[in-house]
Amino acid sequence: MDTQESLLPVFESLRRAQERLALQNRLQKDAALRAAAEAVDRRRAGILAANGKDLEKARLSGMKEALIDRLLLNERRIDGMVEGIEAIIRLEDPIGRVRAGWTAPNGLGIQQVTVPLGVAAIIYESRPNVTADAFALAYKAGCSILLRGSSAALESNRALLGAIREGLALGNGIPEAVALADSGRREEVDQILGARGWIDLVLPRGGRDLIRRVVENARVPVIETGEGNCHIYVDRDADTAKAVDIVENAKLRKPGACNAVETILVHRDAAGDFMPLLAERLAGKAELRCDDPSLKAIGPPPAGLALKNAAEEDWSTEFLDYILAVKTVDSLDEAIAHINRYGTRHSEAILTNNLKAAEEFRRRVDAACVYVNASTRFTDGGEFGFGAELGISTQKFHARGPMGLEALTTIKYLISGSGQVRP
Amino acid sequence: MDTQESLLPVFESLRRAQERLALQNRLQKDAALRAAAEAVDRRRAGILAANGKDLEKARLSGMKEALIDRLLLNERRIDGMVEGIEAIIRLEDPIGRVRAGWTAPNGLGIQQVTVPLGVAAIIYESRPNVTADAFALAYKAGCSILLRGSSAALESNRALLGAIREGLALGNGIPEAVALADSGRREEVDQILGARGWIDLVLPRGGRDLIRRVVENARVPVIETGEGNCHIYVDRDADTAKAVDIVENAKLRKPGACNAVETILVHRDAAGDFMPLLAERLAGKAELRCDDPSLKAIGPPPAGLALKNAAEEDWSTEFLDYILAVKTVDSLDEAIAHINRYGTRHSEAILTNNLKAAEEFRRRVDAACVYVNASTRFTDGGEFGFGAELGISTQKFHARGPMGLEALTTIKYLISGSGQVRP
Repeated sequence: MDTQESLLPVFESLRRAQERLALQNRLQKDAALRAAAEAVDRRRAGILAANGKDLEKARLSGMKEALIDRLLLNERRIDGMVEGIEAIIRLEDPIGRVRAGWTAPNGLGIQQVTVPLGVAAIIYESRPNVTADAFALAYKAGCSILLRGSSAALESNRALLGAIREGLALGNGIPEAVALADSGRREEVDQILGARGWIDLVLPRGGRDLIRRVVENARVPVIETGEGNCHIYVDRDADTAKAVDIVENAKLRKPGACNAVETILVHRDAAGDFMPLLAERLAGKAELRCDDPSLKAIGPPPAGLALKNAAEEDWSTEFLDYILAVKTVDSLDEAIAHINRYGTRHSEAILTNNLKAAEEFRRRVDAACVYVNASTRFTDGGEFGFGAELGISTQKFHARGPMGLEALTTIKYLISGSGQVRP
Repeated sequence: MDTQESLLPVFESLRRAQERLALQNRLQKDAALRAAAEAVDRRRAGILAANGKDLEKARLSGMKEALIDRLLLNERRIDGMVEGIEAIIRLEDPIGRVRAGWTAPNGLGIQQVTVPLGVAAIIYESRPNVTADAFALAYKAGCSILLRGSSAALESNRALLGAIREGLALGNGIPEAVALADSGRREEVDQILGARGWIDLVLPRGGRDLIRRVVENARVPVIETGEGNCHIYVDRDADTAKAVDIVENAKLRKPGACNAVETILVHRDAAGDFMPLLAERLAGKAELRCDDPSLKAIGPPPAGLALKNAAEEDWSTEFLDYILAVKTVDSLDEAIAHINRYGTRHSEAILTNNLKAAEEFRRRVDAACVYVNASTRFTDGGEFGFGAELGISTQKFHARGPMGLEALTTIKYLISGSGQVRP
């Protein structure tokens, strides 16, 4: 196919650059990253002007305000990007770590050491700050990266990438280690997904449809991220006041986040105390979609409460909105079964003071992050202390949960002998 | 598709069984494995009789003797299977290990613990011993496994699986955690490869064509195994006598193994000393396919030496036979470039006493196992001390190099709070 040819020179250039980048030490990589951060800082006027063009085009096309806000750059957001790169500079080098080492009976020394995964690609939606984050994480991990941003952010991403590459050149780095797939054509994504042997990892970052499309079509390794149909189970032995605080936080603090809670499972013996308090707390702030028992438990609804009957589809919906589904369960078993059936293996919480219930929940719930007595909102590379994150993996293969630099590494065995042969 | 339906009950049963198996502790898993080993031991007459049927059918169909030998079971090989399961019983439980743990500034306790990957599938060729090994490794790691053996081994595998499941039942284990895909139909493989959500990992074990077919068609995660176009680079500063010993071992000891050497790269300054000795050692034992300079370096060929001119395709061929390609290189750089171009990222060796050359080779060669002064034949779970192996991964995603139990695990974060919410 001739469309296949158009990205091939980019793949080749990224591969060659990665081979060189893999040999750079931390001082070299950090110096290049620092120069890139400085270039973004220095060229902010040009970046903002480019972003202005994207915004103008977006407004003319009738883009929704929420999406425009995602696309928007301003002085503060550029400061954030620069600080993000600085934070990645401060992280330890994930490469060259000896994860294990031993001597075989015949005297062979065997070491398992970390090496860069290779060439990564990220396919993402409007937010231009992902451009700077993804580049910096990849560079620090010795990986080349192909950035495929949304066409709505094309001018912003071109300006950003121009600054980054200028900085890398000035900082004696490897500008060819980062590239933008900027034709805006949809087939470009197909080329990336089919680039076996060239791309070692594809990260889709965006909505459910994007992730699904990538997962369905990729011939290269993918890490699924982000879909979070998260639950909080309010056990019979929960502290009711704390439970209301935690649910409020997990729902209202940032409803569009993948770690926000979508469904509350409440033990029938806890519903009578918990539901009226929850209804009162969320009145005027979020809509509740309740099954019959939890609806009844609310009693007379407080003023301003948006209340609906829950439908079957609510259990499998990631609302990403000020909407909360509520289901009453008869037992811990039922709660766990519901979560393992409808959950997306992202973040799940139990609120209880019962040790056995907490342990059962932890053992039997299949998810990247399982919480006892805390908000699901903590599933985040920053909160976990990873400094930065590539995304949150909802798969079990290669990486799971908040992904820091480690997801961009693999291992190599180094074996040292003195002439050993195998009998 | 209606063919799609036929394995669905098997997938469901494996998934349910895996949920239960994930909760078993080491004592329970080991007791069940011991009972399975005893059942294989006890039912060996039936297994051998079933194998006899497979062998008869294979001979009638004109199967080659080498393949018949792979299919053959005898008392000794059944002993080997039983011992293989016993060896896996002795391995530490890979599940429930706390790989990292820390306390966040807000007091949240965060632990990263190992959990089973889920439901695995293995697609393999004739060797029935893989049936016992793969089952036992998966069971120990808390994973269900679907075995898709070759149709040539169908009776043997059925008898083996019957014994294993009988043993699991007697040992209070979970017989449903292992199943055989035994329709013999080719579409069965397609169903396994497409079973997203049901199968968490597919391992193809067999020839290049099988692996390629699986990799090309899988919609579920795959670990590529086995293809090994391995090189030994004989540096200018190699110990010539040891080099001849190592090359002989890596080529002749088991030419059909994926870790056998296929091409020797010899530095032009070493060729004069090394090639005549190598030619003498391999005369009558292996065919040499040499480029011009290495051919000349041999001088008058010793009696019985099979000698040919190397062709371009030899550099990319995994002979799996008593054939060795030889190329002369002008430099370490040329050797590394050749390996990174033609190698399959499996096992690569440098023979040298030059420290800088050894370090360069280690850093720049992209392979699962990089050797200095030893035979490539050591790339093996047993030799690495892993007790057993699922295969040797030649990919960089999830697992690389010899795979023990760890390849069948993933992680889960357990977060313990006392009411924390995210500001």
